Amino acid sequence: MRIALDAMGGDRAPQVTVLGALLAAREGVEVVLVGEESALKAELARHGADLPIVHAPDHIPMEAHATEVRRRPQSSIVVAMGLLKAQEVAAVVSMGHTGATMAAALFTLGRVRGVERPALLVEFPSQKGRTFLLDGGANADCRPSFLVQFAAMGLAYAEASGVAGPRVGLLSIGEEEGKGNALVLETYPLLRQALRERFFGNVEGRDIFLGTTEVVVTDGFTGNVALKLAEGEAKVLFSWIKEALTSSPLARLGALLARGALRRVKDRVDPAQYGAMPLLGVEGAVFIGHGSADEVAVKHALLRAKALVEAGLMERVRDSLASLHV
Amino acid sequence: MRIALDAMGGDRAPQVTVLGALLAAREGVEVVLVGEESALKAELARHGADLPIVHAPDHIPMEAHATEVRRRPQSSIVVAMGLLKAQEVAAVVSMGHTGATMAAALFTLGRVRGVERPALLVEFPSQKGRTFLLDGGANADCRPSFLVQFAAMGLAYAEASGVAGPRVGLLSIGEEEGKGNALVLETYPLLRQALRERFFGNVEGRDIFLGTTEVVVTDGFTGNVALKLAEGEAKVLFSWIKEALTSSPLARLGALLARGALRRVKDRVDPAQYGAMPLLGVEGAVFIGHGSADEVAVKHALLRAKALVEAGLMERVRDSLASLHV
Repeated sequence: MRIALDAMGGDRAPQVTVLGALLAAREGVEVVLVGEESALKAELARHGADLPIVHAPDHIPMEAHATEVRRRPQSSIVVAMGLLKAQEVAAVVSMGHTGATMAAALFTLGRVRGVERPALLVEFPSQKGRTFLLDGGANADCRPSFLVQFAAMGLAYAEASGVAGPRVGLLSIGEEEGKGNALVLETYPLLRQALRERFFGNVEGRDIFLGTTEVVVTDGFTGNVALKLAEGEAKVLFSWIKEALTSSPLARLGALLARGALRRVKDRVDPAQYGAMPLLGVEGAVFIGHGSADEVAVKHALLRAKALVEAGLMERVRDSLASLHV
Repeated sequence: MRIALDAMGGDRAPQVTVLGALLAAREGVEVVLVGEESALKAELARHGADLPIVHAPDHIPMEAHATEVRRRPQSSIVVAMGLLKAQEVAAVVSMGHTGATMAAALFTLGRVRGVERPALLVEFPSQKGRTFLLDGGANADCRPSFLVQFAAMGLAYAEASGVAGPRVGLLSIGEEEGKGNALVLETYPLLRQALRERFFGNVEGRDIFLGTTEVVVTDGFTGNVALKLAEGEAKVLFSWIKEALTSSPLARLGALLARGALRRVKDRVDPAQYGAMPLLGVEGAVFIGHGSADEVAVKHALLRAKALVEAGLMERVRDSLASLHV
């Protein structure tokens, strides 16, 4: 089982992508680098290592418009999607342009039957493990039916990740049925009907970190605000803790002794642990990481893609959508 | 200048409200307790203290529907709003039923000229001080014009809080104009027109904690999700830190030495520090706290109400709305 990495995608590509690929290869992932052959060969040579390369002379820069993929068939992300479409690889991982990756995936692979709009799944650390939220930002405006499909895909992903009997919460601003905005009020009965006992009901912002349900569905606007808020808060809180722990000799000594313990908490909320978010609802396993990803995030993205494909992610997504009660 | 406290509002009223009122009175706030006279007298007697009471035989329980205020004129929150309407007090503070307090305020006081919908302002700690976000949950579905009015009210509140030259960010899922949902795309040009250079442009979830702008506007659904997510995340992160710091003898010793420093960070993000959120856009200074508030939160709410009224909050809100460029 081979996985294609868009080696030209990301703020520090191809240095970080090639290094991440080498780290993942050492842990048993068969990576195929897609990108400008001479640049990738030079980068591999720096590490005295080798990996298979599929040449793609073009790539989509971070500042480009997503629709450019349509007229740049030689770009690394479009070539990578072509390999997936042709089943030469089992998944595509990109730390590049999110919009361009989504456009290339949709355009090359098409949608899974029953899906109106693919969605990004994002993970939050929670008191009970992890919360899978979708949509993380692919669809700023959603219709109720989209959220029902997101729920089915989220359940499939949670199961492929090893969660037993996951349930879905509908993100709202009150626990009771009847609380929320127009989208939530319309979506609630549809989720009840489609998921039956796998629908928990409404959940609130705090439930994401409490882990009340393993899966949370919302529109891509709210989901993306939540993701970036959570990342920003963690970053700021840890910067304050660091500041406080260097504020006096006593605190500095305490920090030294407690360093390992605090680092474990920081790692627990570090986005690099998650590596990349899956784009669910396209006909193929596609994972998209932060443009600012480091080599550890690239490695984790590749390991995660492998684990999920092995767990039958695509079959589970198709089955979950087909099994909705309508 | 007297401030009315709905002494029957909140999960642990009147114990917590009376105690909070006494703490605030010690710091110079002239508090009027509104509620069931004999219960309040008994509570005051327990502390060997006295405060003025305005009798209200009824009160709205936390589980009631907000619209019940219309047929319960003797309830503490409606009586308190009556005192404000009659200018016998300069502000009302309630830790009770948020919906009922909003309904009583709107119904008794009416709206400020130029305001279609009153909004709740919520505060987030930020790297640069505080971020004022509205709407925190009063209006789940918003029209673009509402957000323009929220911006004007947020600027007035920031200035009354001592911020010089505040600017407004429009919460979105990308910094560039053209990124966002339908509401954001429609609101952007209206804010540019109405606020001119006081409009910063789009901000993202992370900017709330970074403090990119002092004021952030969004619909009440997204705002309330953001508020509860931020509270939940802080709570969970600190519980993990506590857990980590008791995980080994070395970490425990370190924690002991760094305890004061860590507590200062926790206090910085503690919602009790904020006390209550103002309901802006009604014709009177109204502050609404958490139902779960403790006496410290009640005290802070009363102190903050006093400070803001003294800083000319209501005049500033009226002027700010009147000065929008249309």
